[in-house]
Amino acid sequence: MENLTTLTGKYGDEGDQLLFRILNSRLHESRKKDELLNEFKESLSRNVNSELLTERALRYDLTVPFARYVVMHQNEITFPFKRFQMQPVWRADRPQKGRYREFYQCDADVIGSNSLLNEVELISMIVEVFALLRIPVSIKINNRKILSGIAEIIGEPEKLIDITVAIDKLDKTGKDQVLEELRDKGLTQKSLDLIEPMFTFADKSFDQKISFLSQMLSESAVGMKGIEEIRKVFELLDNNITELDITLARGLNYYTGAIMEVKAHHVSIGSIAGGGRYDDLTGVFGLPGVSGVGVSFGIDRIYDVMEESGLFQDDRLSPLGTRVMFVNFGDEEARYCLSLLRKMRSAGISAELYPDSVKMKKQMSYADDRKISFVILAGSEEINSGLLTVKNMVTGEQTKTSVDNLIEFVAQS
Amino acid sequence: MENLTTLTGKYGDEGDQLLFRILNSRLHESRKKDELLNEFKESLSRNVNSELLTERALRYDLTVPFARYVVMHQNEITFPFKRFQMQPVWRADRPQKGRYREFYQCDADVIGSNSLLNEVELISMIVEVFALLRIPVSIKINNRKILSGIAEIIGEPEKLIDITVAIDKLDKTGKDQVLEELRDKGLTQKSLDLIEPMFTFADKSFDQKISFLSQMLSESAVGMKGIEEIRKVFELLDNNITELDITLARGLNYYTGAIMEVKAHHVSIGSIAGGGRYDDLTGVFGLPGVSGVGVSFGIDRIYDVMEESGLFQDDRLSPLGTRVMFVNFGDEEARYCLSLLRKMRSAGISAELYPDSVKMKKQMSYADDRKISFVILAGSEEINSGLLTVKNMVTGEQTKTSVDNLIEFVAQS
Repeated sequence: MENLTTLTGKYGDEGDQLLFRILNSRLHESRKKDELLNEFKESLSRNVNSELLTERALRYDLTVPFARYVVMHQNEITFPFKRFQMQPVWRADRPQKGRYREFYQCDADVIGSNSLLNEVELISMIVEVFALLRIPVSIKINNRKILSGIAEIIGEPEKLIDITVAIDKLDKTGKDQVLEELRDKGLTQKSLDLIEPMFTFADKSFDQKISFLSQMLSESAVGMKGIEEIRKVFELLDNNITELDITLARGLNYYTGAIMEVKAHHVSIGSIAGGGRYDDLTGVFGLPGVSGVGVSFGIDRIYDVMEESGLFQDDRLSPLGTRVMFVNFGDEEARYCLSLLRKMRSAGISAELYPDSVKMKKQMSYADDRKISFVILAGSEEINSGLLTVKNMVTGEQTKTSVDNLIEFVAQS
Repeated sequence: MENLTTLTGKYGDEGDQLLFRILNSRLHESRKKDELLNEFKESLSRNVNSELLTERALRYDLTVPFARYVVMHQNEITFPFKRFQMQPVWRADRPQKGRYREFYQCDADVIGSNSLLNEVELISMIVEVFALLRIPVSIKINNRKILSGIAEIIGEPEKLIDITVAIDKLDKTGKDQVLEELRDKGLTQKSLDLIEPMFTFADKSFDQKISFLSQMLSESAVGMKGIEEIRKVFELLDNNITELDITLARGLNYYTGAIMEVKAHHVSIGSIAGGGRYDDLTGVFGLPGVSGVGVSFGIDRIYDVMEESGLFQDDRLSPLGTRVMFVNFGDEEARYCLSLLRKMRSAGISAELYPDSVKMKKQMSYADDRKISFVILAGSEEINSGLLTVKNMVTGEQTKTSVDNLIEFVAQS
């Protein structure tokens, strides 16, 4: 959790409304509920002050708390500072597919460096991560300075946020709705005519896009800076799944340079990673002039994509699952198996002993459900002879093996 | 977060007061603050109903939410069900050393099996974990049935919770305070005389403790059951750092059998792991008769113990730190280094390129602060000759090596 004041005003009006606020704990500390509510009611009639109610909130993302952390620890940190962080975040939204009230983000940021090499490195990381996860993706990149340039050129520089918020919805609502929203925000027909060609850009080549923008924004210093940044990033990238999308806006207020967004092919769930550069984020906490850039992976959406795409392997092949189960024949046999269990685990084989000496059928069906590869039978007979029975649960084959050879047998099977 | 009703009443009165409650989000959804407070104020004057204010709370531990999960998913789960879980939990407590408002627990539980082998396995796991972390610990074990037996024998069975809550404070407040609290709770002098010998038990052997208890509790069926369980667990354990402590009570209401607690030697910070068996926990959620046992590691306290004991290794030795840094001499050299960087990473060597082409001194001092082992200089001269300069940051030694030999050189150094 964070102080409410750390979070409010950082995510736009919509973001503020999606913060989960925490009831002040002194409201329920060691006193009766009715008493508390009466006290609260009384204080309300004197002075409507919501700090009585809540002063803390749950993290909405990891970036703003990270900026707060960097400012608090600026004297202990070596800049440029790189960190990754995996933690839950919360949004008071209506839950639906791809939209969760509580979900995990995995963020990587570099703070304290203006170099575009950081953007290049982060994009390379995104490419590598999704290649490893075997999720085909497209990565879209844009630059807020280009959007600022456009706002400037159409003579509405103060409407930058309105414009980005509207354009950000292009994917969801379509071109006409976006133009409608922009008109509602007060853009003239002339401005809309200037913006409209941006929406039919998708099929053009990188060079065509850049050349169009260079003409359109030639009078805007910030716009031309954005184009230069985009060019440099693409020049250094060595992959062909990244594309320039000048309708990409990203909703968050704090981006000032590169912005990026990742979508999975084949699964419709919104973006599964996104990020960008923020020049002023630590400024609001008292450390101006420190630029940062970061990317956030939406772990729950990535999980959903992998599940929907059948990318989780059979448990039997997973290094996390149990590979060997000892059947439990009773106290004495269990004690014997415990020592074998320890040996197997020391050898790196994940093994378990069924905890209760229930019917064989129940134990075998447990092993089957858990997709355990081998079941070992060590009853009194086997213990006396020193020859254990090993059942291969995939083939059904049963083998006798000596205690000494057991680990080797399983390891090589 | 959980529904408030899932959590209340599960952790005792003190636990209920330590829950962080979340303000209902409809209280701040798309409406003005003053308006909301007025509406709330009005509803208070009609009917004092705190559900208007809060219906959800933050997890206090991982066990109760796990029980809720098991009941909700009982038809998809294979029992006995084993799971581990690492997540943050929250307590609205006054922060101090070893006491955090937000901290991580790592839990392992087995649910759906009465077998004491589960207790044995969990204790073995505790022993292994702390051996791997190189933290010397003692593990104390008791059984709630023994405490129930004692409450029964002194004729105060309904005071079991009062007795456990009082005894649980023995470590913190001392014997006299505990006896005082028990007297306040209405125990007679005769009862106190029966209980008092328990507090001077520490030096006795396991057999002496069991023999004392067997005499004391011979008339209590539940007490004798507790003794039998303890005997069996100790019989199957193969370590000598576990000891029976019949003054161990654990604060939580839901334990019904074995209880355990781990403390680090040398560092005074309270218990760093603890757990026990709970027979009725899923019952309150509608699935009776399913017993579980689990252990919870307090990750933040363990971190603090490791830090205080100097157990974190030098970053230079850590596989997580950067091993190689390329100096940034400018755009062209950086582009050259980027491709080397990719090769090094593919070879499993963690490497980075300093992102900005700032003064050499600044870059070297960054490498030093970050405890990076090797710095590679690839300026225009080195690029032309194909011979790179590698500086060993520990010895200060500089070596020339060809691009082809670079990875081998670093890997073998």
